[in-house]
Amino acid sequence: MMKARVIVTLKNGVLDPQGKAIEGALGGLGFGDVGSVRQGKVFDVELTGTDKEAAKAELEQMCEKLLANTVIENYAIEIA
Amino acid sequence: MMKARVIVTLKNGVLDPQGKAIEGALGGLGFGDVGSVRQGKVFDVELTGTDKEAAKAELEQMCEKLLANTVIENYAIEIA
Repeated sequence: MMKARVIVTLKNGVLDPQGKAIEGALGGLGFGDVGSVRQGKVFDVELTGTDKEAAKAELEQMCEKLLANTVIENYAIEIA
Repeated sequence: MMKARVIVTLKNGVLDPQGKAIEGALGGLGFGDVGSVRQGKVFDVELTGTDKEAAKAELEQMCEKLLANTVIENYAIEIA
């Protein structure tokens, strides 16, 4: 099994209401020096193949088709 | 500004219905060699302080109090 991690984050400039809510909550809990918070998603994917290049290409396709909304999100792929 | 990334993932053994749904969807899209998918959250946090140790301790408190449900989730902190 090959293990990969995909991290999907909002592109700069895209409003992040969840991040804003978390900023407010952290402020309310007394964490005074929080500048900003941006929330994203992480996917830990196990693949049965063994070819890293093929896996990278396949993961990119998974991101393009399902895991990320490429209009407003970036994705980064790490293969262990 | 200091930049930190917090990655929150489900502990092993905790059922991940979202991950299961994504596995099914990827299978349906023709990605045949997906073993498993586990979904988590990533928080990119900007802190106004400059002391890394203090920031690490503060981020741990943020995770314990808000960002992670430590009963079923693990968290990992990376400070740039």
